[in-house]
Amino acid sequence: MSGEDCLAGVRVLDLSQFEAGPSCTEALAWLGAEVVKVENPRSGDPGRMLSPPPEGDAHYFLQYNANKKSIAIDLKSPRGLALVKALAARADVFVENFAPGVIERLGLGPETVRAHNKAIIYAQVKGFGSGSPYERNLAFDMIAQACGGTMSITGEAGGPPLKPGPTLGDTGTGMLLAVSILAALYRRTRTGEGEHLEIAMQDAMLQYIRGAFATLTRTGQPPRRAGAGSVLALNPPMGTYPCKGDGANDYVYVYTSRANPEHWRRLLAVVGREDLTDDPRYATPAARAEHEVEVNEMVAAWTRRHDKHEAMRILGEAGIPAGAVLDPAELLADPSFAARGIVQTMMHPSAGAYKMPAWPVRFSGRPPPVRAAPLLGEHTETVLAEWLGMNETDTRAAERADG
Amino acid sequence: MSGEDCLAGVRVLDLSQFEAGPSCTEALAWLGAEVVKVENPRSGDPGRMLSPPPEGDAHYFLQYNANKKSIAIDLKSPRGLALVKALAARADVFVENFAPGVIERLGLGPETVRAHNKAIIYAQVKGFGSGSPYERNLAFDMIAQACGGTMSITGEAGGPPLKPGPTLGDTGTGMLLAVSILAALYRRTRTGEGEHLEIAMQDAMLQYIRGAFATLTRTGQPPRRAGAGSVLALNPPMGTYPCKGDGANDYVYVYTSRANPEHWRRLLAVVGREDLTDDPRYATPAARAEHEVEVNEMVAAWTRRHDKHEAMRILGEAGIPAGAVLDPAELLADPSFAARGIVQTMMHPSAGAYKMPAWPVRFSGRPPPVRAAPLLGEHTETVLAEWLGMNETDTRAAERADG
Repeated sequence: MSGEDCLAGVRVLDLSQFEAGPSCTEALAWLGAEVVKVENPRSGDPGRMLSPPPEGDAHYFLQYNANKKSIAIDLKSPRGLALVKALAARADVFVENFAPGVIERLGLGPETVRAHNKAIIYAQVKGFGSGSPYERNLAFDMIAQACGGTMSITGEAGGPPLKPGPTLGDTGTGMLLAVSILAALYRRTRTGEGEHLEIAMQDAMLQYIRGAFATLTRTGQPPRRAGAGSVLALNPPMGTYPCKGDGANDYVYVYTSRANPEHWRRLLAVVGREDLTDDPRYATPAARAEHEVEVNEMVAAWTRRHDKHEAMRILGEAGIPAGAVLDPAELLADPSFAARGIVQTMMHPSAGAYKMPAWPVRFSGRPPPVRAAPLLGEHTETVLAEWLGMNETDTRAAERADG
Repeated sequence: MSGEDCLAGVRVLDLSQFEAGPSCTEALAWLGAEVVKVENPRSGDPGRMLSPPPEGDAHYFLQYNANKKSIAIDLKSPRGLALVKALAARADVFVENFAPGVIERLGLGPETVRAHNKAIIYAQVKGFGSGSPYERNLAFDMIAQACGGTMSITGEAGGPPLKPGPTLGDTGTGMLLAVSILAALYRRTRTGEGEHLEIAMQDAMLQYIRGAFATLTRTGQPPRRAGAGSVLALNPPMGTYPCKGDGANDYVYVYTSRANPEHWRRLLAVVGREDLTDDPRYATPAARAEHEVEVNEMVAAWTRRHDKHEAMRILGEAGIPAGAVLDPAELLADPSFAARGIVQTMMHPSAGAYKMPAWPVRFSGRPPPVRAAPLLGEHTETVLAEWLGMNETDTRAAERADG
């Protein structure tokens, strides 16, 4: 077993869509929970249609819904709503990320659901937290990143704020909620009590930029954007240096820690400038910061003569922190990722053999296995049978009543 | 209670330093685990000295070590090592993020520790995973971000790769490890069995850029950097627009979803261009992408006349996803964050009243409370007494033997 038995027996009723909620419930699914997505019978989670291929579900959907089940139920029909309430009464965890007020209007708000199931962990993702002046505003990943501080510290020095490429507003939020759900589930083994959890995407961003808060309280000023450098301090050489080739990502990152003066000395040896080892212009981090342009050019003059993989290998073997800038295509093609189970292949009815990143934590050497994201409504019958004891005739009657 | 009782009774022996490991164990501490940092008696976690104030621990250290305990033990002395082994035999969770090979050389590797404590969750943070060609290389946050793909999708279109401001290589890794530790602890309530977990910072990055992997498999090309836009698709208006004021962050993010045509119509009304509502040059997302420059200028002409807060308020009330670009100083000063417990004040012996972000998930309305980060060795005596039954005389003898 590789972690996929950790949450065996945990039933998650998942009313979430797109990414913040689904990334959370997918983590639970990878670790063995039975995650049942409740989707509208017409088109399901709108993530299924986010730039889809000519046939079948969008790759975006496959990424965030591996290892889950899907039941198609119309929340706008009384019969559908009654079924979801019955499922919620039997669930261990409930997750939703609808727009503000929607879940309460459906009659599936936290008070209602918890009144019928005192042991349930009821978890909500908001854009802005309850009580915020913006609690009724719409939010998406980029809005959370604008309002949560991550953009203010991303971009070229002197340039406009940029969006970090990672979808921290979504998946970054989902991971914090997963931690909290599991902590509440753990407590429940002791107390039998449920919980009401709420996370706002704006609030979640603060968790990932606490170095910037440390800089702020130390200097009294909000940190400036630092390009490829750090908001903690100016510390050359530190950044992406150009390598051989003219690809968009033909760069190597080179870093020399202020805490370890050996990094700089080793770097001088690699770039063939041992003559500068005791030169006071470069001997300390502070001196190097004063000669930033020369220091960077010294490193770049060497990196330009090597491709990024070779540069990473030579610098790494010399004990200097260094990394090639790799893009998703290079990562997906790297045989080491497949060998270690970090990239796995999902076998999917419409997408075929779909290669994608798995849960990256290894349990006794292996990450949990990736299984297919569900087709819309693929598990309606089996889930209604297993959770509610309904037989095929009941289910068909429910479907007719819904139609 | 606000979540701080979830992990009551869980003992975490924490040999980690800087951020990836400490951010993980701090999450466990906030949720109620007893987290005991093992630190060298001379200077402790090097994070204590990362740009410290004239007296006391660095703010950086306070951010990542709230609610923990500290014991000062020299791992290089036989007596110190024996104490740590005895503590490990009584711990529920063990976390380390030393450089490659260090923990094994200390005699505290996973096989050794697990041989004496079959129920322990033994968790390791690596830079590059075991079995990777780079498994022996040094790694820091920025190296993981270079090699894990996040830099390749961050930066101006046509510009060099930049580092996302958030420390995803560190805290992003720590959060995934926390999820896995809690899942393994949950299983242990059923099976009594421990686990060996390993996460590599490079591997962890893939979890946060899966939209980019979806774009890659859809288009066959690694996604291009998109400035403040999205790697999923070109979709104007979408980005940071300049507002009144000349501050570095006087911008508002404006987004119109392709899935909801109302966003664009509402935006036209706000900017006073309802005359263009049915204009075929702008009627669809594809048409707007063809007229990107005009679309952006239309939005900017309006945003320049408003400050970012006003722009966010007006756009938000009109039902358009929008967010002011806020910096850490603005976030820390926002009364809504303090009122909701998202920002709290740590009372600390050297730092005084230190205002900082808390765990951002609310349990029944409140995030768990922030308590002081420990002074170096503050809890040596109490932990040795409580975990090992040692009295004051034993501890003094141990300290003398260590000196």
